[in-house]
Amino acid sequence: MKEVRIGLIGLGRLGYEHAENIAKRVPKAKLQAICDVDQQRLEETAQELGVEYTFSDYEEMCRCSELDAICIVSPSALHTEHIRIAMENGKHVFCEKPLDTTVAKCKEAEAVVAAYPERIFMLGFMRRYDRSYRLAKEKIDRGDIGRIVMIRAYTQDPISTIESTLKFAPHSGGQFLDMCVHDIDLCNWFTGGQKPKNLWAIGGCFAYPEYREWNDGDNVSCLLQYEDETMAFLFAGRAAAHGCNVETEIIGTKGTLRIGAVGTDSMLEVLSDHGVCRECYPDFMYRWHEAYIAEMEEFVNCILDNRQPEVTVFDGTMASETAYRCKESFETKKMLPFRD
Amino acid sequence: MKEVRIGLIGLGRLGYEHAENIAKRVPKAKLQAICDVDQQRLEETAQELGVEYTFSDYEEMCRCSELDAICIVSPSALHTEHIRIAMENGKHVFCEKPLDTTVAKCKEAEAVVAAYPERIFMLGFMRRYDRSYRLAKEKIDRGDIGRIVMIRAYTQDPISTIESTLKFAPHSGGQFLDMCVHDIDLCNWFTGGQKPKNLWAIGGCFAYPEYREWNDGDNVSCLLQYEDETMAFLFAGRAAAHGCNVETEIIGTKGTLRIGAVGTDSMLEVLSDHGVCRECYPDFMYRWHEAYIAEMEEFVNCILDNRQPEVTVFDGTMASETAYRCKESFETKKMLPFRD
Amino acid sequence: MKEVRIGLIGLGRLGYEHAENIAKRVPKAKLQAICDVDQQRLEETAQELGVEYTFSDYEEMCRCSELDAICIVSPSALHTEHIRIAMENGKHVFCEKPLDTTVAKCKEAEAVVAAYPERIFMLGFMRRYDRSYRLAKEKIDRGDIGRIVMIRAYTQDPISTIESTLKFAPHSGGQFLDMCVHDIDLCNWFTGGQKPKNLWAIGGCFAYPEYREWNDGDNVSCLLQYEDETMAFLFAGRAAAHGCNVETEIIGTKGTLRIGAVGTDSMLEVLSDHGVCRECYPDFMYRWHEAYIAEMEEFVNCILDNRQPEVTVFDGTMASETAYRCKESFETKKMLPFRD
Amino acid sequence: MKEVRIGLIGLGRLGYEHAENIAKRVPKAKLQAICDVDQQRLEETAQELGVEYTFSDYEEMCRCSELDAICIVSPSALHTEHIRIAMENGKHVFCEKPLDTTVAKCKEAEAVVAAYPERIFMLGFMRRYDRSYRLAKEKIDRGDIGRIVMIRAYTQDPISTIESTLKFAPHSGGQFLDMCVHDIDLCNWFTGGQKPKNLWAIGGCFAYPEYREWNDGDNVSCLLQYEDETMAFLFAGRAAAHGCNVETEIIGTKGTLRIGAVGTDSMLEVLSDHGVCRECYPDFMYRWHEAYIAEMEEFVNCILDNRQPEVTVFDGTMASETAYRCKESFETKKMLPFRD
Repeated sequence: MKEVRIGLIGLGRLGYEHAENIAKRVPKAKLQAICDVDQQRLEETAQELGVEYTFSDYEEMCRCSELDAICIVSPSALHTEHIRIAMENGKHVFCEKPLDTTVAKCKEAEAVVAAYPERIFMLGFMRRYDRSYRLAKEKIDRGDIGRIVMIRAYTQDPISTIESTLKFAPHSGGQFLDMCVHDIDLCNWFTGGQKPKNLWAIGGCFAYPEYREWNDGDNVSCLLQYEDETMAFLFAGRAAAHGCNVETEIIGTKGTLRIGAVGTDSMLEVLSDHGVCRECYPDFMYRWHEAYIAEMEEFVNCILDNRQPEVTVFDGTMASETAYRCKESFETKKMLPFRD
Repeated sequence: MKEVRIGLIGLGRLGYEHAENIAKRVPKAKLQAICDVDQQRLEETAQELGVEYTFSDYEEMCRCSELDAICIVSPSALHTEHIRIAMENGKHVFCEKPLDTTVAKCKEAEAVVAAYPERIFMLGFMRRYDRSYRLAKEKIDRGDIGRIVMIRAYTQDPISTIESTLKFAPHSGGQFLDMCVHDIDLCNWFTGGQKPKNLWAIGGCFAYPEYREWNDGDNVSCLLQYEDETMAFLFAGRAAAHGCNVETEIIGTKGTLRIGAVGTDSMLEVLSDHGVCRECYPDFMYRWHEAYIAEMEEFVNCILDNRQPEVTVFDGTMASETAYRCKESFETKKMLPFRD
Repeated sequence: MKEVRIGLIGLGRLGYEHAENIAKRVPKAKLQAICDVDQQRLEETAQELGVEYTFSDYEEMCRCSELDAICIVSPSALHTEHIRIAMENGKHVFCEKPLDTTVAKCKEAEAVVAAYPERIFMLGFMRRYDRSYRLAKEKIDRGDIGRIVMIRAYTQDPISTIESTLKFAPHSGGQFLDMCVHDIDLCNWFTGGQKPKNLWAIGGCFAYPEYREWNDGDNVSCLLQYEDETMAFLFAGRAAAHGCNVETEIIGTKGTLRIGAVGTDSMLEVLSDHGVCRECYPDFMYRWHEAYIAEMEEFVNCILDNRQPEVTVFDGTMASETAYRCKESFETKKMLPFRD
Repeated sequence: MKEVRIGLIGLGRLGYEHAENIAKRVPKAKLQAICDVDQQRLEETAQELGVEYTFSDYEEMCRCSELDAICIVSPSALHTEHIRIAMENGKHVFCEKPLDTTVAKCKEAEAVVAAYPERIFMLGFMRRYDRSYRLAKEKIDRGDIGRIVMIRAYTQDPISTIESTLKFAPHSGGQFLDMCVHDIDLCNWFTGGQKPKNLWAIGGCFAYPEYREWNDGDNVSCLLQYEDETMAFLFAGRAAAHGCNVETEIIGTKGTLRIGAVGTDSMLEVLSDHGVCRECYPDFMYRWHEAYIAEMEEFVNCILDNRQPEVTVFDGTMASETAYRCKESFETKKMLPFRD
């Protein structure tokens, strides 16, 4: 195989980003087919990106013999089902995070993936493919910072997009599932797979009382204690004044790493009557653009090299399970052990 | 009164810093007397700083009619007693933090101070007098960052002083009492006196197992939920590779303030094969030198203006009570309400 | 035309970068042919990047009817000749900087380009396509910083590549032609095409006496006065300890812009016993990777949209002429008017 | 001598700063007398700072037997005369920069100082006593950055004080004498006393045409070549939007030092819709407050230890001579050798 032919389902905002990357920016990948229920969007996108086949039926797309792999960007609750259908039809699978919307379904997904060991499966934890995070991981693995003591992880949406954020809120799964799940996966990754032992989540509706309806807060946080005593502190906010802020700190016994302490979308510094300023990323799509490309390149290379990617289906379950437990702690207002 | 004549007890490292400041750097203050059990240190210091009177008996010093105020830098367990004696002898009192070593004794101290309302009493939470923290407080009070959502506070000692840190450890009261107490007071100050509702403290011995002997960790953290839902995350570490690191972040609904994000002891940036680097403060004495002077100036001005300082004896009790509760949570491994 | 078929000459390091970008990273572009005198390199590259045609004769490549455009990365002294041949054969031309090695030949190139107004011509001043520089240009054009007072521009190679830098030195044209030419073009661009009035260049061999042989310095600088009094200060160095450092500052009457003040190749900050550090770019290829892609995308889009790019052949002459005049000032040790 | 009794002349803004420092912040110094032509200001200041003697006649003050030293903050054109009178009366002398207003008078001052070798003489180049600059000097002297290649020095006044800046302009001596003189002294200091060989100064009136009346620009710069080829670039501006900006960079063959790259007046970082911002110093008095104290402490210690300070009367002449030559180059629009 010289080129990986990919069929993609789901042409929402992130789905389109993946579609465009596969079509234009990932060498050795070809966007051969796209699938969506919105017929107009389907046709426009096909024309714009030069896609040969369009489908409104996912199963039909998976049966197409001219496809090597499926890229799943459908609603989270359909992920397991979509993974199963793709694999049954002999396709490699890239699936957006989260793995699915319940731990039980994540376990099901694990079983499906396990049944097709010769198929490549990759989960879209794109941060692992961001250059800064990769550099951090290398330094950690090389022992540069000694033993990890604490991880601090912030994920903040910008206030500038609050309207669409609020619209999406009821379907997002809440702060822990939607935002912290990335940070949880980073903790998993950086610590080499440590499991949480105990956790306690709090938060509130500081500016947007709407979140109360969904048993959520507009700003939440969680303190986790891992089995080896490593600490992790997660914070997620929906409306940061300065922009999209994703910041990760890994404190070790011999050194500390910080990623995104001044998350800025260019090397430009503006000196004016506001002082010496750097601007932040306007939104997550902007922040992770390169990472989305890099993860898709990795997926394609895994297929061509016939090797599994570093991020596995089990990482997906672990992240979701942890995020759910955070949510439970938040809702019950109790410190909880990771598992009962 | 044109000049405040001060007698100081305790010539340890911080005691000497205060003594030197009073003698040399605080206008309108005079170091008139010093008291210590170490006779040699007492005499040497008196000569060096030009102090007229020396005492080995604290009560005797307090009876000296040529003193207007007493500066207490004695062991924490003696604070309440020393406050009482000074006040009974008609002196104004500056007392180092913590107020005392048990909540009960803090309450006693409150009673003593309450009994002498005409005397000025000030507790040594010097961070409140640091320029950066004052600026932050002004911005918060002006509403610049909206409603406070979360406060994050780090206090890290440098690894370079770990030996003396370990020596002091058995008498320090532990991480929460010794280090976090400052951060707790900042939370108290920034939130305008909010009380904690629940808290959970964790940590471990990541590099120095010695701390286990004292039911403590070398790195600890605590998540606090305040009565109005404000969140606070405290982290204290004993051995940061990059130096003395004190960092405070206040996240609000309209903006965020960060103090000490790159805590550096000068405006010097070094570009070398290590990259673009700024050096950190070597130790806390260095970091807070100006603040120690500023707080003493404020104490002296309060006496001359006959007004009480912003930081009260009640702030001392609140900080100690909270720190003890953190410690209890750490030891019992339970999330706890602030009060039973 | 749906796709621009490009033939490229010159498979040196930068030539390969362009070849790879055209082949893999520029949507709507196809690397159809490559040309080089090194037969082995030619074949290996063709295979690696999937290039259909290979040529050892440039003119022959230009006659190939399956090519729409030529990308010239040949030795600078051949640029004008190569532009002529390509244009005579009806091709669009992208030419690496500098335009050529003498002002006379730059003028010749101007004439050639003028003779084929329907052909797209673009010069490789890639910095204009770097995101940070584009943002700066936008702010300047919007009037954000008022009238430009001074531009400061640094271009420093890293000490880590000094060996290859020295090897390339005899053929580089010297610091002003090889390095400052980019900064000169930025001044041209930011000021909206102001011409220099006077200039004075100095420098020396501070670590590498070898440069004396080539009438050059290892570190040089030049102060320029533009016709409207705008000042520009250029500095070029061959061996910066901290890495590849390209830094531009535009001081205006109402604000100042800085690009690359801390030129760092990721968002990672390392806190260790060296302090709080950010690492620099290892080399220029790394620094400008995205800009090289962006400029080639722009070239391809210009062809497809049938419009000329912002950067013209005249910009190439202006930059070279200025750089030569700097060199002359350096060699004669005199402050010189821009033109005699 | 246990305490140095100082008489000060000149109660302008900087004079008052020195007076207050001597009175309140410099241990072992006493402000014993002050002298000014403004009787009201004299009396008010005497009362406020508790000064025993006031004089309206400078010579009379210098004859006072209760004074050990004189601090001269009078108009620059009187400096040499005031130094002479003080020394003739057996006093040690601290003199504000510049040494005087012509090179001839600086030479005269040299002769006076030389005639009284047992008297301490110190010139107010306070930047040498700023902590960041001292650290830089230490690193340079230790060889950390190798041989100095180039020094870049900016001195910018804030736009917020432009009105008083304009008022002072006719008497200031112009940008080079008034502002760059500090930077010139730093070059002198960092290079270990290298002399300029050639220099060229340019500039213009970019926002304030008023400066043309005084043969000056509102923004000016100068490129200097030192005898050992070291380069220096000076820039001075009268109206920086972001505040008082003093920035110095020393590029060496092995490393680079930057002081004040983000000149900020606290450790506070503000994250808002302007991005991530740090505020600058509001004015020079604020920036150098600590340095003014430190230099006065050094002066007092020199007297008590009977040793001469590092900064000499010759440094004063060198700085003034260089600044005048820059001014001449600016006015004649010619590159000039340091001396004809």
